[in-house]
Amino acid sequence: MSAPIDFYFDFSSPYGYFASEKIDALAARYGREVNWRPILLGPAFKATGSAPLAGVPLKGEYSLHDFQRTARYLDVPFRQPSTFPIATHYAARAFMWLEGRDSGLARAFAHAAYRAFFADDVDISGADVVLDIAEAQGADRIALAEAIVSDAMKLRLRNAVEEAIGRGVFGSPYIVIDGEPFWGVDRLPQIEKWLAEGGF
Amino acid sequence: MSAPIDFYFDFSSPYGYFASEKIDALAARYGREVNWRPILLGPAFKATGSAPLAGVPLKGEYSLHDFQRTARYLDVPFRQPSTFPIATHYAARAFMWLEGRDSGLARAFAHAAYRAFFADDVDISGADVVLDIAEAQGADRIALAEAIVSDAMKLRLRNAVEEAIGRGVFGSPYIVIDGEPFWGVDRLPQIEKWLAEGGF
Repeated sequence: MSAPIDFYFDFSSPYGYFASEKIDALAARYGREVNWRPILLGPAFKATGSAPLAGVPLKGEYSLHDFQRTARYLDVPFRQPSTFPIATHYAARAFMWLEGRDSGLARAFAHAAYRAFFADDVDISGADVVLDIAEAQGADRIALAEAIVSDAMKLRLRNAVEEAIGRGVFGSPYIVIDGEPFWGVDRLPQIEKWLAEGGF
Repeated sequence: MSAPIDFYFDFSSPYGYFASEKIDALAARYGREVNWRPILLGPAFKATGSAPLAGVPLKGEYSLHDFQRTARYLDVPFRQPSTFPIATHYAARAFMWLEGRDSGLARAFAHAAYRAFFADDVDISGADVVLDIAEAQGADRIALAEAIVSDAMKLRLRNAVEEAIGRGVFGSPYIVIDGEPFWGVDRLPQIEKWLAEGGF
């Protein structure tokens, strides 16, 4: 089996959400697994001098429209969140902690969190809502509640984000296949060709 | 016949170049013509607080790599220009002046200018090289030489760019179909679906 694909995403990124609904099945078609790697776009945007899309003149208005159209194009349920973008450090830390214990549970949490935010307009920035979502997927709420505010998890997430930026990650989704980087859900067709042909 | 598609592009934009090699045939498959509308990204970037891709930390390095891969993916000849990005006001004015006289000639000039820059590494920022390219396509060099430095063409281009920005155009390529905007050559699949289905 070939090496896993790295899938970097921020829980507040609509294009990351769209990719999250596609990447596992796409990878599986080519015998690949996927490492899900939550990041925080804030520090990445600082590194590139970028700003959250929705607030950028012209591009922001376009993007809000493109989110909707791209969701329809990819057949992914989507409703523009009322509060957007949001802080996602609790969700990211929760994912990382769960991932260390039960990879399937972590994945289920990630899907549930993304869908809560982008399909059901639930603000997932707070610790409580993150715990609600994780508990509904079967996580140990009490242990997770401690973990997501612990210094250890804060440090792990900070290090993971720094490591990602050090690797060149500057957006979401950012997908790396055998060292080849792909930014944006609109690169899925190139990703598929890359997987099918082993590069092109 | 349905209304023409508007195709906004900057002669210094690789993704604009890739789109220029695809958009006419794509539109023709759905009985559409294309209005080619050269713009200058400088003023558009000022409006959005953006910077030329190649100079942005992390994103710049990625983009230079993505240009090459996307060219291969789309099967368009491409060599990274040694000087990049460049000023394109002469090329844009030349296109606009030619377009007013002979639309086919203007289109041939645009293709030749884009290919000179992105396939043959010819710096097309200067007036002389623009005139060389246009003349090789059959343009009246002397009349065009006067036109591209004339106050009238300067004003026309400035107005065209302002009008484009007023319409929301902030990048290249930026394609508008019956009022629906699409930014980026990676939106070609959505454009095709939109044309095929009359929206989605």
